[in-house]
Amino acid sequence: MTDEVDLAFGESERIPAVAQDADSGEVLMLAYVTSEAVERTRETGLAHYYSRSREELWQKGASSGHVQEVEEIRVDCDGDALLYLVDQEGGACHTGYESCFYRTIDGETVGERVFDPDEVYE
Amino acid sequence: MTDEVDLAFGESERIPAVAQDADSGEVLMLAYVTSEAVERTRETGLAHYYSRSREELWQKGASSGHVQEVEEIRVDCDGDALLYLVDQEGGACHTGYESCFYRTIDGETVGERVFDPDEVYE
Repeated sequence: MTDEVDLAFGESERIPAVAQDADSGEVLMLAYVTSEAVERTRETGLAHYYSRSREELWQKGASSGHVQEVEEIRVDCDGDALLYLVDQEGGACHTGYESCFYRTIDGETVGERVFDPDEVYE
Repeated sequence: MTDEVDLAFGESERIPAVAQDADSGEVLMLAYVTSEAVERTRETGLAHYYSRSREELWQKGASSGHVQEVEEIRVDCDGDALLYLVDQEGGACHTGYESCFYRTIDGETVGERVFDPDEVYE
């Protein structure tokens, strides 16, 4: 028997969610989710996040088509971080890279570019 | 030629860092880092984080021995999240699981327990 895990959204009412490619294991991006974003993700099977700068719920890939089908949502021990295991359409990063983590801290590019952002975003 | 990437710590002066097992690709944990935590990680090669509850820098594994040797640090496109690629000694989670993300959101345990916390923490 299992019980749904309580999430600890805290005062900010949001927690970080990490998207990981379910097949390759590559960590694709980190964004934030509210309770509503998690609900929408579960209802639709597509990753939703909350934009802190735009202050709104957004569906990943709504404009680019680079949606994330969510195979599984995991919760960490404290209930204050999520892991989305996803099938990523196209690339996760708006720069055209497969992963937003395409650089080392020393500025070396280690990721793979999978699309041309000029052709995707108008 | 590469230049060190500027990190966007923002008003909170900290950003999330995701630790991923460099070999298996498993996402192990998410914690927060300050500028000082990143410096200490780079100096020592061992993952350091900043505890929001204790308000202090901490070295992962300082009490448990379950240190993380950091092979590489990656930065995301916005410079406001880090990815530590690590060799994890023992397990990452204080509960004894290899990863802190050992449960699905429905409460099903999917992770592997690799140590007994009662024997590690006194």
